[in-house]
Amino acid sequence: MNILIMGASGTIGQAVIDRMGSDHDMIRAGRQGQDIQVDMTSPESIESMFERLDRIDAVVVAAGGAAFKPLSELTPADNDTAINSKLKGQVNTVLIGQHHLSDGGSFTLTTGVMVDDPIACGASASMANGGVETFVRSASFELGRGLRLNSVNPCVLDESWSKYGKFFPGFETVPAARVGMAYQKSIEGCQTGQIFYVR
Amino acid sequence: MNILIMGASGTIGQAVIDRMGSDHDMIRAGRQGQDIQVDMTSPESIESMFERLDRIDAVVVAAGGAAFKPLSELTPADNDTAINSKLKGQVNTVLIGQHHLSDGGSFTLTTGVMVDDPIACGASASMANGGVETFVRSASFELGRGLRLNSVNPCVLDESWSKYGKFFPGFETVPAARVGMAYQKSIEGCQTGQIFYVR
Ligand SMILES: NC(=O)c1ccc[n+]([C@@H]2O[C@H](COP(=O)([O-])OP(=O)(O)OC[C@H]3O[C@@H](n4cnc5c(N)ncnc54)[C@H](OP(=O)(O)O)[C@@H]3O)[C@@H](O)[C@H]2O)c1
Ligand SMILES: NC(=O)c1ccc[n+]([C@@H]2O[C@H](COP(=O)([O-])OP(=O)(O)OC[C@H]3O[C@@H](n4cnc5c(N)ncnc54)[C@H](OP(=O)(O)O)[C@@H]3O)[C@@H](O)[C@H]2O)c1
Repeated sequence: MNILIMGASGTIGQAVIDRMGSDHDMIRAGRQGQDIQVDMTSPESIESMFERLDRIDAVVVAAGGAAFKPLSELTPADNDTAINSKLKGQVNTVLIGQHHLSDGGSFTLTTGVMVDDPIACGASASMANGGVETFVRSASFELGRGLRLNSVNPCVLDESWSKYGKFFPGFETVPAARVGMAYQKSIEGCQTGQIFYVR
Repeated sequence: MNILIMGASGTIGQAVIDRMGSDHDMIRAGRQGQDIQVDMTSPESIESMFERLDRIDAVVVAAGGAAFKPLSELTPADNDTAINSKLKGQVNTVLIGQHHLSDGGSFTLTTGVMVDDPIACGASASMANGGVETFVRSASFELGRGLRLNSVNPCVLDESWSKYGKFFPGFETVPAARVGMAYQKSIEGCQTGQIFYVR
């Protein structure tokens, strides 16, 4: 399969490449220095990426930011970060990509533990993740040509603990290798409309 | 209590007024012809509304649009309708309103059955509703001064069946009077972070 990884240089993107790179052709995407450039916050950039690519059989989105701030300090402008990247970036990749993927292809998006298990300073990221998961459940029924759509919802990765740990007191972590397996299940399996939890 | 209803002239807004108008002072808001004008798609308009109001003890948001289209025809621009009104409109009302409401005040947002029970042509509205519900669950823990935050998630109203029924084959409807009671429970009760289902 030709597998496009948006966010290839990140911790999760690398975990997917480690798990699947020996069996498939991986096309690495990011804002800079990858096989192909894309800014997921721009629908035009996503469209242009798909137009420049040959056959794509699976898309993974493992990118997206959010403002982590106490709710009392969170402004509408802060909240737009998560809206524009995590939420619209992932949803627009499906809306645009559905017209470009091979028959039977798959989209695998990324959410996270805070959808179900809220943390302080996390309302904006949770909101975006919740929108993504509800979109996955709903849109999967309407995709044509055998296209599938799932999301992987991992807890904080072992490898990201030094970066995010302070926001997740008492949360267990998961190794990147297990997270990579969940993307493999989504891409090589038959399921659609699912949230694959890694806990 | 002084209760602000954004979307007061709508079917649900009227149901809230019918249920609560005799016991409380209702301040009706909408884009036109109400006690106070607001466009929920504009953070500046929401801010200006709160600045023009005196004491507000409860806010109900019963407004928000979405494009209902087959997924294959849904564009990123179509999807922005739900993002800007249902999702950002409601979330920004909380982010801005938290600095204006009376101590112990409440926000009651509006979602709907399609979050849990998807329909064709509904992926965009579902996405926005899912984002709102996840925000409610997360942000409620962080609100200060005893502020509370809930959402009412009704099935299609009897009174709206002629307008929306064609999108909801086999869905049961609920009378506006029962929907009004759920908003009363949120406003006069003690709960926070809840989704009050009306099924
Ligand atoms: N790590 C965790 O523990 C964890 C757990 C659950 C969920 N998540 C979520 O999973 C996603 C990936 O996490 P991560 O830790 O792997 O992130 P990361 O290590 O920070 O990597 C992010 C990747 O996304 C790319 N990227 C950032 N903004 C982009 C944009 N606008 N357009 C296209 N690509 C963009 C970056 O490359 P460029 O800078 O070159 O664009 C980079 O490859 C995030 O949404 C994160 O919230 C992470
Ligand atoms: N009715 C149902 O069966 C049902 C079931 C579940 C969920 N819902 C959801 O509940 C919400 C209200 O539904 P409804 O049926 O009561 O709607 P409605 O009858 O169409 O009324 C909408 C109300 O919102 C106001 N409004 C629209 N856009 C606005 C904006 N940008 N800023 C401020 N106010 C705005 C309108 O007044 P102006 O035109 O003057 O602005 C009107 O008062 C919608 O989000 C709907 O999807 C409805």
